[in-house]
Amino acid sequence: MKFKNATKDLDLKSNDRLYLKFKSPFAPKHYKDLKPKGFKIFTFNSGFKKKNDDLLIILFDEIVNVACKYSLTTMPSAPIIWDKKNNKGTCKAVIVNSGNANAHTGKRGLQNIDNYASELSKYLKCSIKNILISSTGVIGEQLDSKKICNKIKHLPFSTDKTLIDAARSIWTTDTFVKTSILNLKINNKNIKIYGFGKGSGMVSPNMGTMLAYIFIDCKIPSLKLKKLLTDNIESTFNCISVDSDTSTSDTVMLFSNPINKINLNNNYKKISNGLNKVMKDLSMQIISDGEGVKKIIKVSVINAKNQIQAKKIAFSIANSPLVKTAISGEDANWGRIVMAIGKTQENIKQEKTIIKFGKNIVAINGQKNKNINLLKVDQYMKNQFIDIEVNLSLGKASSIVYGNDLNHEYIRINADYRS
Amino acid sequence: MKFKNATKDLDLKSNDRLYLKFKSPFAPKHYKDLKPKGFKIFTFNSGFKKKNDDLLIILFDEIVNVACKYSLTTMPSAPIIWDKKNNKGTCKAVIVNSGNANAHTGKRGLQNIDNYASELSKYLKCSIKNILISSTGVIGEQLDSKKICNKIKHLPFSTDKTLIDAARSIWTTDTFVKTSILNLKINNKNIKIYGFGKGSGMVSPNMGTMLAYIFIDCKIPSLKLKKLLTDNIESTFNCISVDSDTSTSDTVMLFSNPINKINLNNNYKKISNGLNKVMKDLSMQIISDGEGVKKIIKVSVINAKNQIQAKKIAFSIANSPLVKTAISGEDANWGRIVMAIGKTQENIKQEKTIIKFGKNIVAINGQKNKNINLLKVDQYMKNQFIDIEVNLSLGKASSIVYGNDLNHEYIRINADYRS
Repeated sequence: MKFKNATKDLDLKSNDRLYLKFKSPFAPKHYKDLKPKGFKIFTFNSGFKKKNDDLLIILFDEIVNVACKYSLTTMPSAPIIWDKKNNKGTCKAVIVNSGNANAHTGKRGLQNIDNYASELSKYLKCSIKNILISSTGVIGEQLDSKKICNKIKHLPFSTDKTLIDAARSIWTTDTFVKTSILNLKINNKNIKIYGFGKGSGMVSPNMGTMLAYIFIDCKIPSLKLKKLLTDNIESTFNCISVDSDTSTSDTVMLFSNPINKINLNNNYKKISNGLNKVMKDLSMQIISDGEGVKKIIKVSVINAKNQIQAKKIAFSIANSPLVKTAISGEDANWGRIVMAIGKTQENIKQEKTIIKFGKNIVAINGQKNKNINLLKVDQYMKNQFIDIEVNLSLGKASSIVYGNDLNHEYIRINADYRS
Repeated sequence: MKFKNATKDLDLKSNDRLYLKFKSPFAPKHYKDLKPKGFKIFTFNSGFKKKNDDLLIILFDEIVNVACKYSLTTMPSAPIIWDKKNNKGTCKAVIVNSGNANAHTGKRGLQNIDNYASELSKYLKCSIKNILISSTGVIGEQLDSKKICNKIKHLPFSTDKTLIDAARSIWTTDTFVKTSILNLKINNKNIKIYGFGKGSGMVSPNMGTMLAYIFIDCKIPSLKLKKLLTDNIESTFNCISVDSDTSTSDTVMLFSNPINKINLNNNYKKISNGLNKVMKDLSMQIISDGEGVKKIIKVSVINAKNQIQAKKIAFSIANSPLVKTAISGEDANWGRIVMAIGKTQENIKQEKTIIKFGKNIVAINGQKNKNINLLKVDQYMKNQFIDIEVNLSLGKASSIVYGNDLNHEYIRINADYRS
């Protein structure tokens, strides 16, 4: 089900951060939307933000299986600590708020979660262990649990909402809604895989890197669900970096919404591939909304010794301030790519490396390509999508990561604006 | 010997990059200068830059001992490859050029060095092994060795110059001259330790991080000279980061200029401490001239489990784009410090951490300091020098690193300007 005019609903101008006047040029013209079956979405303005919804409550019709991945940060937010301690792989409800990350808030931060999670568990008559929590927003401020409790009391009188409402209610510096929907035909059944997410700044891999909630409309046992998430995270959410900064709060949750039953063993690969597409779609939307983004950089490192080497070099390029500013300036300064490869201290063969911008070989055999068509390369650098390929000529491993340019808008968002 | 009006000589406006109109606010009002004894400094404009000198030749009266540290990059420039292969710890002459890094230039890059190094070795009637080479500037362009050879032919007719001339001839995006001079009294002898360097962008530790040439005016055996350099590099040049990007070319050379003889065993510590001061002074000058710098950030991580942990966390903070933009915006956003600690994945105790801006405790026991005086902290953030202290309360190790803010000027220098 698509809401064709879904964008009309979005009052982007009223977003709390929109006085920044920046909107990603990569924002889609239409957003994918649906009202899910098997669970209900509720959103509220609970007072963490001045305007717009800042609270999302997801209520499943029954208890479902869930797999979660959290930020590898060693300074985790209270929700991550709480979830890890409480949750055992099943879920009846999820509470997510924006506007306050409940991070670095000590024991009181955890008590505040206890307060509003208990309130919801009483209402649902379920164990508190079946409630999952996320928060995003300012770090270091205590979260007023009453604001959430008040809205939980409103649940019986509220009407449920759609995927887009859910996505919008968890924004921080996002400038567009991030949803993804895929339809799979399995054994003549229509199985939907869909989700929503948020992320714009403080985005760098090591799991999480943002918030995302993904649903598969069929019954999947807990262990298989975990495997599905683990199998697909490296090539999706763990392949993007806006600013090399990893959040304290970031979380991906994958739910098995048991409204269909299928033979999983025969269809694991099909589901895994479908899930990968949805996760990739969401992670690409996040990089497309990186703070201040004007250009998206795809870095492919090919023929590396191993995957770890490939990814390390790819991220070194995608995260380098000098590479990111060169791309921003539409400058084919491939010397900065050379620098970013070298600074990883990976054992490579300089004389074997080949560097390409798009289809243009700029350096080969450890030096400048003599036959380079500079006009063509200059023209290429004007694109919104810049494709950098590094061929290490060492082995067979490869890695693709995505980043974006570093420009005045990023500085405006993060320096000129006072938190 | 100080040249009191040395600054008058500096025509900053004629620097090739000065149309950028940025000059570090930390530029000293006067520069330390001297004409050295035991070696001669020659500088030329050889055509790598349109204006100003771009070639430095240092000629020692006799063959001296030298210790070198190079960038740990795995994409080293031709001079680094050449030096490492040729040099055996003794030196008669050094050739440094700016305007072309001779990096990623393959075999031809090495042959070009052979050309001009041979020219000088013939003139000096010394082995080519006693010549050291550095280059800084654009990566990936072949260096025209004739330009240097032509100037070597001019050496017999040239007058020697001073430390400031040397420093200025190796500039890239530098906006002020970096020299340092220390006088030591050892056994009633005046022993000078002095040097000069360059560095502004593509500056991040792993040795080198820039070019620096340091001289100790007494005879020191090769092994001791190496030890002196190794003992002092971690706390000086390896403690600074402008942009987390490590150059392909960076080099520190330490020369024993044997114009004095002293009992080294009794005075090692004194010399080492003196050397540390000069190296620290030069590295602080480099961070003070970081591209676009408006604020200098000192990050101290104290009571860490070990030194590696302390330094890793300190650099994670100093290199974080979100921390750097917050400092630029004079925003006491300590949540970004929390994020930068956590993203290292170091095993720490969140509830024991204490974060300070200057003398102001902003977070304690894993949460916001309730007694924080926000007005005072806001006032503090307006300073040019921002002192961030993280107390991990884990052990006894500590580390101090220096970085600077990320602002529009950095973007202007690296994105708006096309190379």
